[in-house]
Amino acid sequence: MKIGIYGYGNLGKGAELATLSSKDGELIGIFSRRAKKQGITENGAKIFPANDVYKYQKDIDVLLICGGSSSDLPSMTPTLAEYFNVIDSFDNHACIGEHFARVDAVAKKRKKLALISCGWDPGLLSLCRLYSEAVLPQGQSHTFWGRGVSQGHSEAIRAIDGVIDARQYTVPLQNALELAKSQENVILSDRTKHFRECYVVAEAQADKAEIERKIKNMPNYFAEYDTAVHFVSEEELKAEHSELSHGGYFIRQGRSGNSKEHKQKLEFSLTLASNPEFTADVLVAFARAVQKMHGEGKVGCITVFDVAPTYLSDLTYREQIEKYL
Amino acid sequence: MKIGIYGYGNLGKGAELATLSSKDGELIGIFSRRAKKQGITENGAKIFPANDVYKYQKDIDVLLICGGSSSDLPSMTPTLAEYFNVIDSFDNHACIGEHFARVDAVAKKRKKLALISCGWDPGLLSLCRLYSEAVLPQGQSHTFWGRGVSQGHSEAIRAIDGVIDARQYTVPLQNALELAKSQENVILSDRTKHFRECYVVAEAQADKAEIERKIKNMPNYFAEYDTAVHFVSEEELKAEHSELSHGGYFIRQGRSGNSKEHKQKLEFSLTLASNPEFTADVLVAFARAVQKMHGEGKVGCITVFDVAPTYLSDLTYREQIEKYL
Repeated sequence: MKIGIYGYGNLGKGAELATLSSKDGELIGIFSRRAKKQGITENGAKIFPANDVYKYQKDIDVLLICGGSSSDLPSMTPTLAEYFNVIDSFDNHACIGEHFARVDAVAKKRKKLALISCGWDPGLLSLCRLYSEAVLPQGQSHTFWGRGVSQGHSEAIRAIDGVIDARQYTVPLQNALELAKSQENVILSDRTKHFRECYVVAEAQADKAEIERKIKNMPNYFAEYDTAVHFVSEEELKAEHSELSHGGYFIRQGRSGNSKEHKQKLEFSLTLASNPEFTADVLVAFARAVQKMHGEGKVGCITVFDVAPTYLSDLTYREQIEKYL
Repeated sequence: MKIGIYGYGNLGKGAELATLSSKDGELIGIFSRRAKKQGITENGAKIFPANDVYKYQKDIDVLLICGGSSSDLPSMTPTLAEYFNVIDSFDNHACIGEHFARVDAVAKKRKKLALISCGWDPGLLSLCRLYSEAVLPQGQSHTFWGRGVSQGHSEAIRAIDGVIDARQYTVPLQNALELAKSQENVILSDRTKHFRECYVVAEAQADKAEIERKIKNMPNYFAEYDTAVHFVSEEELKAEHSELSHGGYFIRQGRSGNSKEHKQKLEFSLTLASNPEFTADVLVAFARAVQKMHGEGKVGCITVFDVAPTYLSDLTYREQIEKYL
């Protein structure tokens, strides 16, 4: 499995490690838009200018696109899907349908396979939601995230005038978590489930009160939540808020039986010291599937829901049955 | 989706409820080998003699085979897969390869699709083991079961001379569970992970000491574990040991990073008030997949590893993306 990595931020660095440590992955190259990053990485991988990627069309089985969801992926994935089988981690839930349609059109036309919105959420937790509702149709599901930095929310803050840098922590609220665990049919609003904690570096002359107001009123990102905004120096942001840890918790409770007398419960949790490295490991597992499925003639845009689990493993089918079934 | 149910014990009764409460399932009939069960169930479903099943070949999309793993399924599934798309819950791990080969040969020849070893283990927990190792290749997995009745172990005891009836509880040992949760790379033998608690009804003249000896020395079932044997009356067994609850816990801990400095952890748990009803709900979800995949031309024997998750849902693909991704 010959892998290319497009983008060399935290996720791209994770993808490099994930590819190099996989049994069946060969890293053809990393493609970066930032000139200063070009050369050889500390792990011996080659970094090329982003535009050189097109020279490697025949050498790359799957290209892992490691860009941001708000500014990069909406154009990057359709563009690259003309030339490569690709995977991205597009996580802007509200726009997935639109992104899917755009990527699908290109990939189908060029007979490439593109897997979008891969990682742990969207990704593994999406799978939990689908599987658990399929096998326990009468019930209710809840997902909690954190405590961890949300890349999308941090980007949204950085887009505000006068903001130099920012980190946003998504914090699950313990009361809601306990309610979701202990009670059935509990209705939890966004505001009761998560708290949003923002650390912001502002320009010296910026109106901090105005920045805070803009953050707290931003629809879809902050307006629906209780949000705290802390202004810090660049040094403090780097020293205190460069953590990569994150986590997720999913629960579905439901009932079965003639009089719905039997309680059934499924729970899944992720505790991650490095969010980007775990996301990258997920991308590499799904790259294996993309390569196999494209080899069988599958083209167009797909999601994790289209991937039969057997394709993810580097073991033979017989080994999978012996070890996992 | 037109469903037939073959066998009407606890699992068959669960399958009846699961089919009747599904949005897209129609129950064509229940087929039972026990004459006294024939007629109409309390839910209005028809029970036919087992051999009548062959009259309904054209009316049934998927037949759920609800028999026991040791005595029924090894012959029942290959026989029925000649005439129907089938699903079974064969759970004798050591013999799955053999069962697969036998069912595959018949199903391929007759252009039917057969899904074996479906339920929660083998089944959902098998999927956890495969997915989690694929996305976290450097690490270690543990599965714990119970406390709950193991049907296979109970059957194994009932096969001993002089035994009228028996129930075997699989009990996870808290020390091992805590070690698996708190430590990485911990090696846990079968004996340290689970305890086996047996309640046995013996014939009046039976040699109880000999029965106990046979149980405790039975390879693959009890010899590898600490086992307690309690002799009880038939009345006590019925009154005290007819519980259907069960559970499972899976954990994978691993590492990522340049110097493997980042701990990553996945956990999954099931807490089931009714094991057979939950297993039946899983069978019905996978029946949906079997029907769709057979419609697309897939034949032969498959497992849960071959099923793309999208096939399990009764929602459209667009709805799945909106609701779950």
